[in-house]
Amino acid sequence: MPYSAIRKLAGYADKAKKRGVHVFHLNIGQPDIETPVEIFQSIAEHREKVLSYGPSGGLLDLRVAVVEYHRNLGFDIDIDNVWITTGGSEAIIFAMMTACDPGDEIIVFEPFYTNYNGFSIMSQVKLVPITTHVEDGFHLPHKDVIEAKITKKTRAILINTPNNPTGTVLTEEEMFIVNNLCKKHGLFLLSDEVYREFVYDGKRQVSALSLPDISDQVIVMDSISKRFSACGARVGSIISRNKMIMDRILKFAQARLCPPTLEQVGAIAAYKNIHKYIDPMIAEYEKRRSILYEGLNEIPGVYGTKPEGAFYTVVRLPVADTDDFCRWLLTDFHDNNKTVMLAPANGFYSSADKGKNEVRVAYVLKEDDLRQAIGVLQKALEAYQK
Amino acid sequence: MPYSAIRKLAGYADKAKKRGVHVFHLNIGQPDIETPVEIFQSIAEHREKVLSYGPSGGLLDLRVAVVEYHRNLGFDIDIDNVWITTGGSEAIIFAMMTACDPGDEIIVFEPFYTNYNGFSIMSQVKLVPITTHVEDGFHLPHKDVIEAKITKKTRAILINTPNNPTGTVLTEEEMFIVNNLCKKHGLFLLSDEVYREFVYDGKRQVSALSLPDISDQVIVMDSISKRFSACGARVGSIISRNKMIMDRILKFAQARLCPPTLEQVGAIAAYKNIHKYIDPMIAEYEKRRSILYEGLNEIPGVYGTKPEGAFYTVVRLPVADTDDFCRWLLTDFHDNNKTVMLAPANGFYSSADKGKNEVRVAYVLKEDDLRQAIGVLQKALEAYQK
Repeated sequence: MPYSAIRKLAGYADKAKKRGVHVFHLNIGQPDIETPVEIFQSIAEHREKVLSYGPSGGLLDLRVAVVEYHRNLGFDIDIDNVWITTGGSEAIIFAMMTACDPGDEIIVFEPFYTNYNGFSIMSQVKLVPITTHVEDGFHLPHKDVIEAKITKKTRAILINTPNNPTGTVLTEEEMFIVNNLCKKHGLFLLSDEVYREFVYDGKRQVSALSLPDISDQVIVMDSISKRFSACGARVGSIISRNKMIMDRILKFAQARLCPPTLEQVGAIAAYKNIHKYIDPMIAEYEKRRSILYEGLNEIPGVYGTKPEGAFYTVVRLPVADTDDFCRWLLTDFHDNNKTVMLAPANGFYSSADKGKNEVRVAYVLKEDDLRQAIGVLQKALEAYQK
Repeated sequence: MPYSAIRKLAGYADKAKKRGVHVFHLNIGQPDIETPVEIFQSIAEHREKVLSYGPSGGLLDLRVAVVEYHRNLGFDIDIDNVWITTGGSEAIIFAMMTACDPGDEIIVFEPFYTNYNGFSIMSQVKLVPITTHVEDGFHLPHKDVIEAKITKKTRAILINTPNNPTGTVLTEEEMFIVNNLCKKHGLFLLSDEVYREFVYDGKRQVSALSLPDISDQVIVMDSISKRFSACGARVGSIISRNKMIMDRILKFAQARLCPPTLEQVGAIAAYKNIHKYIDPMIAEYEKRRSILYEGLNEIPGVYGTKPEGAFYTVVRLPVADTDDFCRWLLTDFHDNNKTVMLAPANGFYSSADKGKNEVRVAYVLKEDDLRQAIGVLQKALEAYQK
């Protein structure tokens, strides 16, 4: 079981802060957007005599709210297709354990969300990585490259669109390639769509739920964490039209009894008020995305393509080892008592030596802070290269 | 992965209720004791701009409250010995995955909490059952019987005292037997102590935390669900003095990011007010325990020993197959439109054919309902035996 690639530099950051250095956090995916007040209000108003076990599959009213949310997006989903999970994390664990037996394989495109590693170890599933590249904007390779990795043990392809850490949004063509491979080889498609709304330049995400041919093979893993800036609530969901799969997932859900009740009450209120929150939030992230992209592009030796979605991008830096550089930023560098924290990209790859000169940058800071952070990063790179 | 033994008759109960039959729930461990109002109050008062990820090991204030709670009980525990989990369920999963590699064995005494089965499958750990018997009040067998089950693959002994489903509280002598076996064979002791306070007749639970010789081998799994009648909160904890173990558990905790924040805020308030709640609650359960035990003893053919703790007991009924009897209670029987729901005990055994004539009875009903339920059960047994 590995340490979290995202959290492993936290100790150095704490020490920098104790020395009085301000740390710009470009390393974590913790949105700074205000959480909908309806979440707190609805929970504050909720009283019951006994805070008893809820249903293992989640509160009925929340499942109804999740169905409504999907129907408004145009997906034909009903109440039997939705279970509520304790965060998107649990949705991923349940999906892996349900789709696979121990020793089975899941194809995944690296760099990928680092915690897939931990969940695959918990599930005793082998992740088979296919590398994508910064020059291609981390889009998928040719279908033959993917197909060559399919073995008798392959049970699923795992995608994440919009993507953490790359910000890449899979195109309709790429989704059809995945659709066709899953259809041809009888694979599950595990689709992590927690950043569904975070797509820029007027484009829209293509959901696995819209694929026509593999309706019974799709398992979508979702969460309210990013959509409603409510990461601490730990409310997610798992969506599938496959009755047998939903039945099997319920067994795992029953073993852990139920998701947290009060935070589910808050999630119901959030979904009911979703129209107030999504558009302004996406506009804010789109603005930051452009500031970040333009700012990074002006730094000599920094290379990345324009982020299409989510609130991350992976860029190449003019350094040999970003693990060392990111630690140095916290231990040895400051510019007027300010420094930057970044996530070394190597931890998002499954292959041991990949991404050594790349970092993940999250744009979860306000405009002014983001501009300052980019300036500090530029000075840091100049200093480090000396 | 098995269906939950506790929840599998739920569909029949729903249908009985639709027919207008009142069902006395003696089947589930859902306390009817009022949840401390401070839990709801503190959560209602909690506002933050962004409901962000909390620490993976739990909110610091809650860890401090859990330390205080342990110190008041006389246990030498400090902040580094405590992680907060999403319910006791997650504490059990983390403990199994940390103590064992896939294929390793854990010795467990059956009947046991049915969800250990599910968690062991998720952890790829083999549970090796040692059967205890109603005639012995489900106390442990001779140490040689336990020792004979220890193999090269055994990594831990799992105990649960006070016990769900049996209500048995392990004596000091039994705890020393377990202590000595763990010491001699270098095994972890996984100790599920969620019912710690639920001990009657003026006795006290002997915690694994008080064992002198195996301080570094003990992993305690705990929860606020029963202690504060807050099952829906999903707040548990895992306690160990072994630094390496705590470090490994944190990796699993980091993968799933954090426990639910708001319910942790409620748990802090509950621990701060624990002195108001425990004694009256235990007095209430002790009264019910006596009513249940005396009532069941008056039914011809029903056999069980006096429950010592928790709020369950396993008794033998004068029927061949309690699976059939418990279903029949819901589908075919009523007495003045009332019936009883019980949990067939077979689901609490790992050995396939054990407990066929036993049921688990939970005493989570108020005195009057409990007396009525016992009366209905007596009539049902008479009718069924005809």
